[in-house]
Amino acid sequence: MPGRGLFITFEGIDGSGKSTQARLLAEGLREAGRDVVLTREPGGSPGAEEIRRLVLEGDPDRWSAETEILLFTAARRDHLERTIDPALKAGKVVICDRFADSTRMYQGLSRGDLRPVVDQLHALMIGREPDLTILIDMDPEIGLSRAKGRRGTEERFEDFGLELQQKMRAGFLSLADEFAPRFRVIDGARAMDAVAAEIRATVDRALA
Amino acid sequence: MPGRGLFITFEGIDGSGKSTQARLLAEGLREAGRDVVLTREPGGSPGAEEIRRLVLEGDPDRWSAETEILLFTAARRDHLERTIDPALKAGKVVICDRFADSTRMYQGLSRGDLRPVVDQLHALMIGREPDLTILIDMDPEIGLSRAKGRRGTEERFEDFGLELQQKMRAGFLSLADEFAPRFRVIDGARAMDAVAAEIRATVDRALA
Repeated sequence: MPGRGLFITFEGIDGSGKSTQARLLAEGLREAGRDVVLTREPGGSPGAEEIRRLVLEGDPDRWSAETEILLFTAARRDHLERTIDPALKAGKVVICDRFADSTRMYQGLSRGDLRPVVDQLHALMIGREPDLTILIDMDPEIGLSRAKGRRGTEERFEDFGLELQQKMRAGFLSLADEFAPRFRVIDGARAMDAVAAEIRATVDRALA
Repeated sequence: MPGRGLFITFEGIDGSGKSTQARLLAEGLREAGRDVVLTREPGGSPGAEEIRRLVLEGDPDRWSAETEILLFTAARRDHLERTIDPALKAGKVVICDRFADSTRMYQGLSRGDLRPVVDQLHALMIGREPDLTILIDMDPEIGLSRAKGRRGTEERFEDFGLELQQKMRAGFLSLADEFAPRFRVIDGARAMDAVAAEIRATVDRALA
């Protein structure tokens, strides 16, 4: 049952449950007979994973915001060419945990007012937007309490601080307005199964 | 005797003697009491050297031309922020073996008609042009015979082929017209000392 290709991205603040929900959606669609590629950014292709390591390892200040944006864009270009585009052309459903909207937020907003640079680079080197973006929205205090015990995430939370997470949440909601046709805002503060069911219904409508 | 900062780049095809001449110029200026930073691209800062390894190691086709341009631009941005700009601000002479003109040629010309992409990326993320660019011009057949015995270079020559080297030579001469005010074309087919003396005289005029 090969359907037409569909490019779905998951976005949201740390601890919002994006990665879990992306995995649940992929499993559900596969059970329904769809050909699904589950991927993530930064990374998602062998070259992009190498760039990911270059960006995320070592001293957090080793790259300026501008260099980091260029590296993420290089990784995204490779990911698009090697993983996403071929899968879509083959009629598969591509589910990606974070994509360009995360760069618009994390590099464009949190590391200075670089949104225009992010947008121009995206227009020049990437171009593609998802068909559907699932924004899992929740109060960062809930995300923080859920993330406790998940070491890496918690550290990152503490680096960012609650105030910045609030700013990110507002930024994502504002992106959802800006790109309204492709965004669906899902309340992530509910039980995992309820969130998963709403996401699945949303995706089924898009696939119909 | 701190002079004002001056940003000098060396360009030319493989085997043209760029790297040797850049080193000779650096040594000569240091003997004359100038504070000189001798650097090269891709690379030139710890981060940019890591990106250089990522680009140059492994299968030559592992990156598309577009991804390669993004990686080179990321490396250049880091090199500029961490090495070139601080040295120029401190009044030093910066001598760089290859810079943006090499990307205009090698990625913009030899890997498809990507010059507009290279130019837009440069305008957006780099901006800076050298004060002075020394183009060492010579017949690629001379460069090839000189490069024989230098393993890495020779292999690259054979990859590119003489015809492509001729195209690169013509491309560099055309760049020298396009950016005439900062370019000096030096005949590299003469003895090393004669070439070095002409370069030194050119640079002394720029420093005066």
